[in-house]
Amino acid sequence: MSDLTPFFAPKSVAVVGASARESSVGHAVLKNLLEGGMPAHWAPKDGSTGFPGPVYPVNHKGGEILGRQVFKSLGEIGEPIDLIVVAIPPKYIPGVMDEAGGLGVPAAIVISAGFSEMGEEGQALQDDMLARAQKHGIRVVGPNCMGLIESDPAVQLNASFAAVLPRPGNVAFASQSGALGEVFLARAKEQGLGLSAFVSLGNKADVSGADLIDWWGADERTRVILLYLESLADPARFAAAARRVTRAGKPVLLVKSGRTAAGARASASHTGALAGVDDAMSAFLAQNGVLRVTRVEGLFNAAKGFASQPVPRGPRVAILTNAGGPGIMAADAGTNYGLEMATLSEQTVSTMREVLPVEASLTNPVDAIATAGAEAYGACAAALLADPGVDALLPIYVGPGTHDVAAVARQLVRSVGLARQVGARDKPVLSCFMGGRVPEARAVLEDAGLPLYDFPEDAAQALGTMARFRAWLQRPQGEAPALELNQAALDEVLAEAPAGWLPAPQAYALLEAAGIPTPPRADASTPAEAGARAGEVGFPLVLKLDHPDALHKSDWGGVALNLADAAAVEAEAAAMLARATAQGLDAARVRFFLQAQRSGGRELILGGRHDPAIGPLVLCGLGGVMTELLRDVSLRVLPLSREDAQAMPRELRSAPLLEGYRGEAGCDLDALSEALLRLAALLEQPRVVELELNPFVLFEEGGFALDARVQLGPPAGD
Amino acid sequence: MSDLTPFFAPKSVAVVGASARESSVGHAVLKNLLEGGMPAHWAPKDGSTGFPGPVYPVNHKGGEILGRQVFKSLGEIGEPIDLIVVAIPPKYIPGVMDEAGGLGVPAAIVISAGFSEMGEEGQALQDDMLARAQKHGIRVVGPNCMGLIESDPAVQLNASFAAVLPRPGNVAFASQSGALGEVFLARAKEQGLGLSAFVSLGNKADVSGADLIDWWGADERTRVILLYLESLADPARFAAAARRVTRAGKPVLLVKSGRTAAGARASASHTGALAGVDDAMSAFLAQNGVLRVTRVEGLFNAAKGFASQPVPRGPRVAILTNAGGPGIMAADAGTNYGLEMATLSEQTVSTMREVLPVEASLTNPVDAIATAGAEAYGACAAALLADPGVDALLPIYVGPGTHDVAAVARQLVRSVGLARQVGARDKPVLSCFMGGRVPEARAVLEDAGLPLYDFPEDAAQALGTMARFRAWLQRPQGEAPALELNQAALDEVLAEAPAGWLPAPQAYALLEAAGIPTPPRADASTPAEAGARAGEVGFPLVLKLDHPDALHKSDWGGVALNLADAAAVEAEAAAMLARATAQGLDAARVRFFLQAQRSGGRELILGGRHDPAIGPLVLCGLGGVMTELLRDVSLRVLPLSREDAQAMPRELRSAPLLEGYRGEAGCDLDALSEALLRLAALLEQPRVVELELNPFVLFEEGGFALDARVQLGPPAGD
Repeated sequence: MSDLTPFFAPKSVAVVGASARESSVGHAVLKNLLEGGMPAHWAPKDGSTGFPGPVYPVNHKGGEILGRQVFKSLGEIGEPIDLIVVAIPPKYIPGVMDEAGGLGVPAAIVISAGFSEMGEEGQALQDDMLARAQKHGIRVVGPNCMGLIESDPAVQLNASFAAVLPRPGNVAFASQSGALGEVFLARAKEQGLGLSAFVSLGNKADVSGADLIDWWGADERTRVILLYLESLADPARFAAAARRVTRAGKPVLLVKSGRTAAGARASASHTGALAGVDDAMSAFLAQNGVLRVTRVEGLFNAAKGFASQPVPRGPRVAILTNAGGPGIMAADAGTNYGLEMATLSEQTVSTMREVLPVEASLTNPVDAIATAGAEAYGACAAALLADPGVDALLPIYVGPGTHDVAAVARQLVRSVGLARQVGARDKPVLSCFMGGRVPEARAVLEDAGLPLYDFPEDAAQALGTMARFRAWLQRPQGEAPALELNQAALDEVLAEAPAGWLPAPQAYALLEAAGIPTPPRADASTPAEAGARAGEVGFPLVLKLDHPDALHKSDWGGVALNLADAAAVEAEAAAMLARATAQGLDAARVRFFLQAQRSGGRELILGGRHDPAIGPLVLCGLGGVMTELLRDVSLRVLPLSREDAQAMPRELRSAPLLEGYRGEAGCDLDALSEALLRLAALLEQPRVVELELNPFVLFEEGGFALDARVQLGPPAGD
Repeated sequence: MSDLTPFFAPKSVAVVGASARESSVGHAVLKNLLEGGMPAHWAPKDGSTGFPGPVYPVNHKGGEILGRQVFKSLGEIGEPIDLIVVAIPPKYIPGVMDEAGGLGVPAAIVISAGFSEMGEEGQALQDDMLARAQKHGIRVVGPNCMGLIESDPAVQLNASFAAVLPRPGNVAFASQSGALGEVFLARAKEQGLGLSAFVSLGNKADVSGADLIDWWGADERTRVILLYLESLADPARFAAAARRVTRAGKPVLLVKSGRTAAGARASASHTGALAGVDDAMSAFLAQNGVLRVTRVEGLFNAAKGFASQPVPRGPRVAILTNAGGPGIMAADAGTNYGLEMATLSEQTVSTMREVLPVEASLTNPVDAIATAGAEAYGACAAALLADPGVDALLPIYVGPGTHDVAAVARQLVRSVGLARQVGARDKPVLSCFMGGRVPEARAVLEDAGLPLYDFPEDAAQALGTMARFRAWLQRPQGEAPALELNQAALDEVLAEAPAGWLPAPQAYALLEAAGIPTPPRADASTPAEAGARAGEVGFPLVLKLDHPDALHKSDWGGVALNLADAAAVEAEAAAMLARATAQGLDAARVRFFLQAQRSGGRELILGGRHDPAIGPLVLCGLGGVMTELLRDVSLRVLPLSREDAQAMPRELRSAPLLEGYRGEAGCDLDALSEALLRLAALLEQPRVVELELNPFVLFEEGGFALDARVQLGPPAGD
C-alpha cells in the first residue's frame, strides 16, 4: 500500500509558481493554503483556517505575495519541504522535479495542464516529468488537476484553487475531472455534505483511484469513498484495493463516464460484440464491491445515507407517509432500486392502529393520512423501527401550510433515538420531507444527523445502494479454485503456435489440456483424407471447414451435419472446398475438421477475452441468434470464483431454460460452471488473448464444446 | 369539450366552511382567496393579490372572518355565485349540492376528504354527492383535494390551501395527489418555474385529467401541461384529448405512478402475462403523444425546457463545454435519452478553430478547455447554433474561482440572441453552469429566458424529452383502416357462443370471418371421428386436444405433430384422451381438433385483450420460450393504424430475424401487419375480451394462425 502521508499530512508546503496576480491559479492556491477558504464552522482553535505549518511561496521573480516573502527557488527555502504544489508552465516542471528530488521532497501536486491531455508531445513531457519524479522517489498527484484538500483539523490543508469548500465531515471524493471536482465541492456545500478529503486526479500520471481507495480505506476520518473516473489506470490494482476496502465495510461509490460512446467496439468474435465495454465495466465493479451509480446526483444521495446512517441488515424497507402519492412513488422507486417492501408484524399494525385515524392505511407503505399529527406519526415510526421484519425506514412527510412540520420532525428524531437505544441500531432512516415548510424540518433532522431528501425516489435510490452494499458484504468471498490442468500439453501448443486464430486441431488441444470436454475429433487437409479419417471419429459426424479467414463457418457454407459414412464425408468435404474457393478463400490453407456429432442438449456460448480497459473477462449466454440479438449474457472478470461461475448461468434471463422449463429436464449446471472455471484458467495462460466455445452444448449430464476458437498473441520474446 | 370557465374565470366565489380558526383548511382557503398568497412580483394593478371579484365566506355559525361578514348559508348571499369551495364535514356536502343547484351555481371545488378514498361507505357518499351535482349541472373538482389556482392577472384565483405559490407563467399542472401538488408548488417556486394554473384533482369524481388537457389545450396562457396521475378515469377520452392537444403542438407530460406494484397481474394467457400493465400504459401514452417521465424531477427538467425554448427540429445536439468530464457525461446521458451527437460542418469547425486555443477539442462535444474566455465561448455557441446540422445546443460551463462566470453567461445570451435573429429560431438552448460561482450566471441566463440545469444529465433529459415531442409531431397521424370483415359470420358465432374460452372450431371461425388466414381444419368428438375426418384436412396434420380447461395444450400432452394417415390420427387421439383423463380432465368435454400442418416459417405470438385501466390493446412478439422469458414484445392500444401495425414487428429487438438475418430470407411483414390489423378489428367486436394466435407462423409469402384462443364475455343482455 502506498504511503500518501506527505499529501494528506505534510509538515510544510511550497507553492512553485505562486503569483501576485489575483486571477492566477498560483495565487488562488497560495491564498487557499494560507487562509483555508474554509467555511466559518470549520472552526480551528486558533481562529485561523489556513494550513498550520510553514507555507513557502516560490517564484523566480521573488518579491512578496499576500504578506509573505517569495523564494526564488526551492533551494533558497533552506528548510525541509514535505509537499510542493506546482503551477508553472509545463516545460519547466521536469526541471522542478530534479530540483525537488535533490532536496528530498517526497510529494508533488502538479496543477499545470499541458501534458498527456495535449497529445503526443504532451505525453512525452509527462513521461519525462514522471521518470524524473520516480527517480527521486517523488509521488505525483496530477498533472492537469485542481489540487487536494484534507479537512482533518490537525492538517486543514487546502492545496487547491477551489472556489468553495464544504464543511468537514466523513466523505472522501476523488475526481478525474477537475470540473466535476469543482461542481462536487459546490454541491456538497449546498447540501451540507461534510468532506474528509478531496483529490483532483487530473491525468493520473502517478497517484490513481486505487491509491486513494487504499489510503482512505485506512483513514479513520473517512466513512465513504466517492470516485468520478473516466478510466482505470491499473484494473488489477484497483480491483484488489476496492475488494479489500469494501470487504472491510467501507463503501466505495463510483460514477464511471464514457459509457455509451465507447460501446461501439468492433470485434471479430461474438464474445467481443456481446461483452460490451460498459457491461464489462459494470461486472468488474460489482465483482469488486464498488457501487456504481449512473449520475453525480446519485453519488450525493447515497453518500448522504452512508455518511450518517448504518448499513441496513437487508433490503426490507418500511415506508411511512402522510400522503398516498409520494408513498406510491417511493414504493415504485424502491422496487426499481432493488428494495423489498417489508411485511409488517401484527404487533406493529396493532400499535399503529391505536394511534392512527381509522382511514389510515396500515399496510406498507403505511399512509398515516394528511391529518396525522406529530405524535401519531412519531409513534408509527417507532413501531416500524421496532419491527424485526423491517431493515430500514423511509419516512415521508408532506407539510401543507396548516401543519407544524418541525414538530413532526422533532417527534421522528425522538422515535429514531429511542428505537436505536432499544436495539434498532443498524436500521437506517432516510427521510423525505416535502412542501413549503421543509426548511423548518430540515434544521431539526440535520441536527439529529438524519439525512433529508428532496424526493422519495432520491431516498429510495440511496437506500437501494446501501442495501446493495449489504448484499456485497454478505456474499461469500470466493477465490479462483485450483484446477488440475495438463500444463505440459498447454505449454506445447502455446510454445509452437503462431499468433492469430488457431487452427481447429490446436484450439481443441488447448481445450482438452484445460479439461474442457470435447467430442472425438480428427483433422484432414484434403477431402480424401477427411473420408479416410472419418472412421476414427465415429458416425454420425460433423464436418467443418477450418480456415483462418472463415471465422463464422456457417457464413461460408462450412458446416455439414449428420454425415453417416466415409463416402458422405469425402463428398461433402469436396463440395465445401469448392464453395470456399468460389468465395475467395485460398484453397491451400483450407483444412477440414471432423467431429463426432452430439445431438440434442442446450446450446450455449462461453467466451473470454482480455479487455484493455478492464483485464481478462469471461462470458456465458445461451447460443443462437436470440441471444445475439437480445444480448442476454452474463459477465465476470477474472479471478473467477466457483461461486461466480455458479451464479453466471443463473442470472441469465433465459436461465429457466437451463434449469428445466415447462416440464423439460434441467441441464447439468455443475458441468457448465466447471467449464467456465477451466475457460478462465485457459484465459490466464500466456499468449491467450481471446477464446470462444460456440456452441458449448449442455446435457442433463455433462456438456461438450462443439466449436472452439482461440486467438493467441505473439510468442514470448516477440 | 367541457366548459370549465366557472373554475378558471369565476366572477364570484363562496367558501362553504370558511372558518376563523387559523389552522383550519376553511380559513387557509379563504385567506388565499382574499390575499392571494401570491409572491410580490405577481404584481396586480391595484396592489392586491387577492381574487378581484366578490368572495363570500359561508358558515352556519355566521359572524365575521378576516374582516368579512360570514353568511349562514349560500342562500343568504342573495347574489349570483359562480364557484363554491367546500370544506365542511363530508356528510353535509350532498345537501350543499342541492342548495347550490337551487341557486344555479355551476361549479364546486370539494376540498373535504372522507369519500371514495375511505372504502365503500365513502364511495356511496361520493356517488350521492355527484348524482346531486350532476342533476343540477354542477361540475365538481375533487373531493379530497387541495384546490385550484389560476394565475391569469385578470382572475388571480387562489382557491386552495397551498402554503406557497410560484410566480405566474406558462406551465399548467394537475395532480391526483394533493401532497405532490404541494411539493410541486414549492419546488416550482424554488426553481423559478412560472405557473399558469394548478388543479388538485383529488378523487376525480367528475373533473379529470382529460378535462384539463382539453381546457389547457385551448388556454393561450398555457404552453406546457404537466400531470401527475395514479389512474386514468376514462382512457378513451384521455387518449382523444391528449392526441388532439399534442398534435396541435402543446406538450403534455405525465408522471404515472403505481408502476411496479400493479405489475404482478395474474392471467390465464400469454398475452396477459407478456403485456404488463405498465408496459401497456407506456404504449398507450406514447401512441397518444403524452411524454411519460419517470420522476417528478424529470417533469421539472422538461417543463423548464418547453416553457422557454422552441421544440427542436430534430434530435441532433451540439454540446459546448469548457471541461471534458461534464461534456462526456452530457454525451452519455444524451445518447441514453435518445439524442444524437450532431456532426459539425467544416465551417463551424474552422470558425471555432480561429477563436479557441490549439488544445481545444473541435469535435462534438466541443471542449473549449478551461482557459477559454467568455468571448471565445460565446463565438463557439454562435457558430454551433448557425450550423444547419445542429438542432439544439447544450452549453456547459464550469466556473472555478478564477473565472468570471457571469461574463460567460452574458456572452452566451448575446450569441443566442444573434443566432435567433439570423434564423436559428427553433433551436433550443439548455444550459448547465456548474461550480461555486453559478448564482452570478443564473441571474443573467434567467433574465434572458434561458433555462439553467444543475447537472448535464438534467439538461440532456429535458432536451431528449423535447426531441421525443418533435418525433411525435413528425410521425404520420394514422387511423385505423377500414377492413372488409365477414360480419354475418362473426355475428353468428358471437350470438351463439357461451362466455369463456371458445372451443377451437368457433375460435377459428371467428378468425376466418375476420380475414386472418388459417390452414384447413376439422374437429371431432371421438378418436374414431378424428380418424375419419383426417382426410378432409390432408396430411401431414396436427392433432390437438380441445378442452376448455386445457389452455396450454402442450402441458397436457395435447399436441401431436406429423401425423401421416388416418390410422395414426385415430391412435394418437385415443392416447391423448387417455392422458387427458389420467390428468383429471373430464372425458365428456374432450374434443379433438385437426389441422393441416404447415412446416417451417417463423413463429410469432399475436394477442389482444381489453385492459381495465387502458382499454383494448394488441401485442406481437416472436413465439417460443425465449420471447416469453425475455419479454421481447411490442404493444399498441386501439385504434391501431396501418403505420402502427407496420411499426410493431420492426421495433422488436428480434426484428432482424423477421427481416432476414445472416443470409436467411425475410418474412412477409405486410402479411403480419394485415393480421395485426384484423386481430385489432376482432378485438373490437362485441363480447371479445381476449384473443391470442400462438403461434402465428410467417413465411416468405403469407402467414397462418396455427393456434387460436378467443375468450368471450357474457352475451348481450346478460
